[in-house]
Amino acid sequence: MGSSTARANIGVVGLAVMGSNLARNLASREGNTVAVHNRTYARTEQLVTEHPEAGFVPSESIDDFVASLAKPRTAIIMVQAGKGTDAVIDQLAERFEPGDIIVDGGNANFQDTIAREQRIAPTGIHFVGAGISGGEEGALHGPSIMPGGSAESYETLGPILASIAAVAEGEPCVTHVGTDGAGHFVKMIHNGIEYADMQLIAEAFDLLRTVGGLEPAAIADVFAEWNRGPLESYLIEITAEVLRHVDAATGKPFVDVVLDQAGSKGTGVWTVQNALDLGVPVGGIAEAVFARAVSGKQAQREAVRRVVASRPQPQRVDASFADEVAKALYASKVVAYAQGFDMITAGARKYGWDIRKDRIAKIWRGGCIIRAQFLNRIAEAYDEDPDVATLLEAPYFAQAVADGERAWRRVVATAAQSGVPVPGFGAALSYYDSLAVERLPAALVQAQRDYFGAHTYQRVDRPGTFHTQWSGDRTESEVPGH
Amino acid sequence: MGSSTARANIGVVGLAVMGSNLARNLASREGNTVAVHNRTYARTEQLVTEHPEAGFVPSESIDDFVASLAKPRTAIIMVQAGKGTDAVIDQLAERFEPGDIIVDGGNANFQDTIAREQRIAPTGIHFVGAGISGGEEGALHGPSIMPGGSAESYETLGPILASIAAVAEGEPCVTHVGTDGAGHFVKMIHNGIEYADMQLIAEAFDLLRTVGGLEPAAIADVFAEWNRGPLESYLIEITAEVLRHVDAATGKPFVDVVLDQAGSKGTGVWTVQNALDLGVPVGGIAEAVFARAVSGKQAQREAVRRVVASRPQPQRVDASFADEVAKALYASKVVAYAQGFDMITAGARKYGWDIRKDRIAKIWRGGCIIRAQFLNRIAEAYDEDPDVATLLEAPYFAQAVADGERAWRRVVATAAQSGVPVPGFGAALSYYDSLAVERLPAALVQAQRDYFGAHTYQRVDRPGTFHTQWSGDRTESEVPGH
Repeated sequence: MGSSTARANIGVVGLAVMGSNLARNLASREGNTVAVHNRTYARTEQLVTEHPEAGFVPSESIDDFVASLAKPRTAIIMVQAGKGTDAVIDQLAERFEPGDIIVDGGNANFQDTIAREQRIAPTGIHFVGAGISGGEEGALHGPSIMPGGSAESYETLGPILASIAAVAEGEPCVTHVGTDGAGHFVKMIHNGIEYADMQLIAEAFDLLRTVGGLEPAAIADVFAEWNRGPLESYLIEITAEVLRHVDAATGKPFVDVVLDQAGSKGTGVWTVQNALDLGVPVGGIAEAVFARAVSGKQAQREAVRRVVASRPQPQRVDASFADEVAKALYASKVVAYAQGFDMITAGARKYGWDIRKDRIAKIWRGGCIIRAQFLNRIAEAYDEDPDVATLLEAPYFAQAVADGERAWRRVVATAAQSGVPVPGFGAALSYYDSLAVERLPAALVQAQRDYFGAHTYQRVDRPGTFHTQWSGDRTESEVPGH
Repeated sequence: MGSSTARANIGVVGLAVMGSNLARNLASREGNTVAVHNRTYARTEQLVTEHPEAGFVPSESIDDFVASLAKPRTAIIMVQAGKGTDAVIDQLAERFEPGDIIVDGGNANFQDTIAREQRIAPTGIHFVGAGISGGEEGALHGPSIMPGGSAESYETLGPILASIAAVAEGEPCVTHVGTDGAGHFVKMIHNGIEYADMQLIAEAFDLLRTVGGLEPAAIADVFAEWNRGPLESYLIEITAEVLRHVDAATGKPFVDVVLDQAGSKGTGVWTVQNALDLGVPVGGIAEAVFARAVSGKQAQREAVRRVVASRPQPQRVDASFADEVAKALYASKVVAYAQGFDMITAGARKYGWDIRKDRIAKIWRGGCIIRAQFLNRIAEAYDEDPDVATLLEAPYFAQAVADGERAWRRVVATAAQSGVPVPGFGAALSYYDSLAVERLPAALVQAQRDYFGAHTYQRVDRPGTFHTQWSGDRTESEVPGH
């Protein structure tokens, strides 16, 4: 039906929740006619039947799907990342022509995206890996979209994606991130930052509960208040919602009936693994990934609880504690974002992408999970000086951290004394102090390395590379050729 | 010369410092005759000329080298990890016969070792990846050796390796770790623990200096004293040596003239990347890897120092501070080792290795960089209960952490207030608290995930998997099929 005339300007392959919602979003925008295809046709029929208003062009076969697309053909693949993606890419690539565009809108590993782009490039077909953030609701009402691929493909694709993206301060939350895998790379970092942000919020909640002695409903009020200030963000907003929610079955606060084990789907792990490859320290993100892992170690948690004789008493705090936690949260959040943007800088250098960090901050202001007021400040910082060495150097953030520093230190100290785990707050403060101190004890580490492995060292007072004869008379010699 | 008679029971290929020292070590042990070969013959000649006492059997060509080996031929490759290794493996594999043994003694990635073993296996030649720790001195006088490969190959190889390994409490520091890549896997974890151990020592030094107000020579005395107690270890010992050393050129403490940037060679990165794959939280190791990375970010450090108006005053501490730091160091070290051994458990499960953790602890007692008294306690813990869920549960360590817990908390709190970065101490304490607390705020994280991504949750009061209709009437439904 309908497939004999090539009248759709965009197609969607894969009609699970994300794909269906994206297709509905596309269809709702003026000027779009949306072809839809799914491996099992029943799913396609269901979508078309349930949403007659969308005017979908359904196809049972991949041949009909391709035939239903106007040129240049543009199709967005929304299937589970992995082998399924490759199968669909191959089906389309066999039927598409030079100039047509295949978009992978799944959560692909950016290195797979780079490889796929290289594989498709000789055909003259454009392959675009596009990160899409915002979950099911975002897909339906307006996600934040991070497309990579060629600049040429973006001329066709850009306006279509702009038509469905979230809008923040009048601008659609989409930009051409960079070539090949740049879009999925930046989406990965978005998710890594999301891990850090959620962990920091969880620590703030734990501190307000365990040390501050507040009940979830009262903490919901605190978060709701925070959401009217510089911490304003989607994650703070939904935290207030979650904490206010009461479990119908028990009448208890909902958060208290949820099992305290957090799952994960892998992009946090990828972020940290790639940060290690790039040599970028991302303790704030890594500790968030590890915190989820620890939460699932049920046998270890039970074993340690069995042998622990007593737990520390929470320290006494006064009414200003919630404000101090807010400042600690803000400062820690600045660190997590600084680390994430450092990764973008390092990735762009390694993979040859020209990424505008101000634009990345802007397209994260709407549609995605980490959307926040805060991102305007990041956009301004990079707009003012694209080559700032770290966000912590930018005047606004330097001032924000300075304002919150005393509170941040007190909160981390209080947590340590009170037995509240703060891997995120603690790692962020240590990272900040590592950058801020005049001398690091890394000098001792390097001296140890020279002692046991002749790894050499540099001196503070003159250039060159040196080694001390530790097992001999301890004279120093300059090592040539370094 | 000498290559026409197959009289060497062991050969070494690659005669840079590590290879030469290992060959000399082998030659010094009764019963060994050592064939030596190097890509450039000049290096071979130099070694043989400088060490006539060794009775080396040198060969200019690889054919002569192979001909000089008695059957079953056994050769240890000591070349730079990477492509060089594969080239030498191929040269030997073309000439060796079934039952002969090729050993890679370099710092190979264990996954490469698994792949190489699979590649060589059809030839009937044994391929053994062996981790060798102890640096140049260890190679010469007795390293800790971690061979993988087949049990059959270990019948021939074991006695040869035992003849050159370090000896700890009467036992040679070598054991058959497990099949294929198990040896290099365990060597990688050794190095990861080494990173953590060095970082924790560096933080202890920084605290004694910055907060305790001690000069390096006085801190050397503190470390020397620690080396007579439960912290006794090679790294504590050499730290005292390094801190006591005075720079001849300036008359200043040596550690003060060393540039505070610590290098790394990659095994720490591998450890953390693999921990992430295995889902094992290793914050203590990760923070050590990141701390080295931060130290090298010169532009960021300078930028932040420029904008920081003032640094916190170190808190006042009393004479007991050094003892408190020792306790914090010990407890943090227990965590780092617990995390490392967790990785061994997880790796053994994933890759099908039967690894005796008590034996691993024992072979690390001598020859290697992390050699320490402490490892006897770990060996005892795993000897007593091989299935202990975490070292923190074992009675000795549970007691040690309980004894040091108050000091540990005070030290981390003092560091936070004083502006001393303690990423290692802090991550270790947060990890411990995460295992020890009754409830983690991971419940909030999981609730957030259900809110924005319908990722579902479990309940504390009944089995099943649930989802709340957050954008609807907030009723809860059970999700079937989970």
